[in-house]
Amino acid sequence: MDSMKGVLKGDKVIFGGEAVAELYNAQYYGRLKGETLELALVEAAYLLDRERISVDQEGRSLSFRDFFIAASQAQEYFELKYIVYRDLRERGYYVQPSVTDFRVYPRGGKPNVAPSKYFVHVVTERKPMPLQQLISNLQAALNVRKEMVLAIVDEESDITYYGVKFNVLKGGMEPVQLTPVPGSATFLQDRVVIWDTEVSTRLHQDGFYGNPMDDRRLQLSLVEAAYLIMRGKLEVTDYEGRIMTPDDFTAKALQIESSFVGKLKTYTDLRDKGLVAKTGFKFGSDFRVYEKIETIEKIPHSKYLVGYVENDHVYQMQDLSRSIRLANSVRKDMVFAFDRSGIQYFSLGRIKL
Amino acid sequence: MDSMKGVLKGDKVIFGGEAVAELYNAQYYGRLKGETLELALVEAAYLLDRERISVDQEGRSLSFRDFFIAASQAQEYFELKYIVYRDLRERGYYVQPSVTDFRVYPRGGKPNVAPSKYFVHVVTERKPMPLQQLISNLQAALNVRKEMVLAIVDEESDITYYGVKFNVLKGGMEPVQLTPVPGSATFLQDRVVIWDTEVSTRLHQDGFYGNPMDDRRLQLSLVEAAYLIMRGKLEVTDYEGRIMTPDDFTAKALQIESSFVGKLKTYTDLRDKGLVAKTGFKFGSDFRVYEKIETIEKIPHSKYLVGYVENDHVYQMQDLSRSIRLANSVRKDMVFAFDRSGIQYFSLGRIKL
Repeated sequence: MDSMKGVLKGDKVIFGGEAVAELYNAQYYGRLKGETLELALVEAAYLLDRERISVDQEGRSLSFRDFFIAASQAQEYFELKYIVYRDLRERGYYVQPSVTDFRVYPRGGKPNVAPSKYFVHVVTERKPMPLQQLISNLQAALNVRKEMVLAIVDEESDITYYGVKFNVLKGGMEPVQLTPVPGSATFLQDRVVIWDTEVSTRLHQDGFYGNPMDDRRLQLSLVEAAYLIMRGKLEVTDYEGRIMTPDDFTAKALQIESSFVGKLKTYTDLRDKGLVAKTGFKFGSDFRVYEKIETIEKIPHSKYLVGYVENDHVYQMQDLSRSIRLANSVRKDMVFAFDRSGIQYFSLGRIKL
Repeated sequence: MDSMKGVLKGDKVIFGGEAVAELYNAQYYGRLKGETLELALVEAAYLLDRERISVDQEGRSLSFRDFFIAASQAQEYFELKYIVYRDLRERGYYVQPSVTDFRVYPRGGKPNVAPSKYFVHVVTERKPMPLQQLISNLQAALNVRKEMVLAIVDEESDITYYGVKFNVLKGGMEPVQLTPVPGSATFLQDRVVIWDTEVSTRLHQDGFYGNPMDDRRLQLSLVEAAYLIMRGKLEVTDYEGRIMTPDDFTAKALQIESSFVGKLKTYTDLRDKGLVAKTGFKFGSDFRVYEKIETIEKIPHSKYLVGYVENDHVYQMQDLSRSIRLANSVRKDMVFAFDRSGIQYFSLGRIKL
C-alpha cells in the first residue's frame, strides 16, 4: 500500500478526501475541513516517521528530517509538542490537538464515542509559569469537566506529567478551650515563649501548638502566637510588659518575616478548618499539615505540605519539580495556597498517565 | 550545696574565684578573666535552668524567665543560640562560645585536652545566607582544621545540622572518540537533534550523551551540544544550514537560557574530569552526576546533584533545606558549584551530631 500524500501548508498538512477513511474515521487523526483532512504538524510528523504518509512542500517530497526542521520553524514549541504527542500516542491514548495543546481521551476511550478526559499543557522546563495562568487554565479545564495535566519536558526531552487540581482541606480538631492568663507569654526577638506551665501544657497537648523548650515552657512560632491572640486564647507581652494587640503583634512579626501576612492568613484558614499546621521547614515548605492529632504521644504523619504563594507569584519549573518530588518522596501532597477572596488551595502531583 | 552567685553585666555573667574550680576546671564553663570567671549568656542560662547558679542584676536575683528576657535583649539571636547550645550540651558535647557561635569538641573530647572539632554557626531559617559568606566561613574553618557545621533553627525551634565541606569530584569516563560528521545535527528551537544514526549511537552509548528521540536520532541538551562542539566532536548547523561556531551556539543558547554560561562552565568541568552530567530537572537541580557509566544497558544511580550558583547568590534557608532533603532522600550528595578562578564544589549534607 502506498502511503497517502499530504501537502505542508503553514502549520497544517492537508490531505484529499481519500485520507478521511483511513486516517480520520479509523484512527481519529486530523480534522475535517470540507472535502479535505487537516493534520496538525505533530500528527503529520508522527505518521511520517511511521511511513504512513508522505508530505510534499512545493512539489518536493520531504524527508522526516526536512519536515521536522520546517515544522520547528512553523510552530512555537513544535519539538516539545511532538515529544509529548508521540509519548501519549505510543502508550495507546487518543490525542487531539486543541487550544490547550492536547485533549486526551481516557484509556480505551475514543473521539466521537467518549468525551476527552484530560487537558494536557505542554511546558518546557525553562519557561516560568505565573500562578494566575496556572489557575485560569485549571478553572478552564474544570468548567468543561476535564482534568488538567502539565506535561513538563526537560532539557533532555524527558517528560514529567503533573495532575493539577483544587483541594478542599478539612480537619478534625476541636478548638482548644482556654482563657488567657495575664503575663503568661513574652514576644522575644523572633519567637514567643510561654512561661506558664499550665498554659504551655494545655496548648501543646490539646492543640499541638508550639514546641516545648523544656518540661515547663513552650516556644510558639509567630503564626501560632498571632492566631492564638486573635482567637482570644493567649495574652502576649512585649519586652516592656505591655499587652500586645493583634495589630501590634502583626506589625512586629512583619519586621521579622516579610511574608508574614500571607502565611498567617493560610495558617488561620487551616486552623479554623480543624487542621493542625506546623512548620514545614524540614521539607522546604511553609507548613506541614495534619488532619487530626488525637494525642501528642502518637503523632501521625502529616498529610500535606502547604506553601503560600502571592498572587503575582511565578513558578520556576525547577523549583516546582523539587517541591513536588520531595513531597511525594515523603508521601505527602504538595499543596499551594493563594488568596482569592479567601484562601484557596490546589495541589500538583506526579501522575503516570 | 548553695548555688554559686554571678552578676549579669552586659552580655556576660561574672563570677568570683570560687566558681573557677567547680564550673571551669571541672566542667569547662566560662573563660578566666584574671581572678574572675566570665560566663556567656547561653552558659549562664543553661546553668540557671539547672539551678546550678543564681544570677543577680542590680542587687536583685533573677528568675530564669527574667534572665532569659534580659539576655534576649542583650544579645542578638540569644534564643537561637540557647536552643542550640542546650541541645549540644544535653547530648554530651563540650561547647565553647566563640566568634563562629560555638566551637564543639568531639564526642569524648574536652577543652584543654583535645582540640575542638567543629565550628558551629547558628542560623535562623528566616535569614538568607550569601554564598560568599558561606564560602569564607568554610575557608576559615578549614584553615584551622575544623569541620564547618550549620545549625539551622526553624520557626518552631527545631534544629537541623548540616555539615559543609569542599568536594573534589572525579570520574572514570574516557572522552568519546569521534570525528565530526558534516550536517549531522541541527539546532532547532531550544534543543539539538542529531539525524545521523551512527553519530547518535556513538555519542549515546560511549558517552551517555543525549536522549534518543527514536532508534535513529538523538536529542542533545544545550550544554551537551555546546560541549561537543567546543571539544571538536560535533558539527551543528542552524535552520539555514550554516555551521555554528562555539560562539554562535553560546549566543543563541543564552537567548533561551539566561544561566547558560555558568551551567556550561560547570558541565564542561564535570565532563573534563571524567564525570557524566545529565539534567537534574526531576530532582529540581541543574545536574545529576554519575562517576562512571560502563554501559547504557546498566546505568547506575547518579551520585551527586549539582547546582550552579552565581557568585552573588543568596541562599534562602527554606530552598536550601528542600534541596538537601531531596538529595538525601534519593541518597545523593547535594553539591553546589561556583566559579572562583575555575569551578569549585562544596556540599551540604544533614548530619547527626
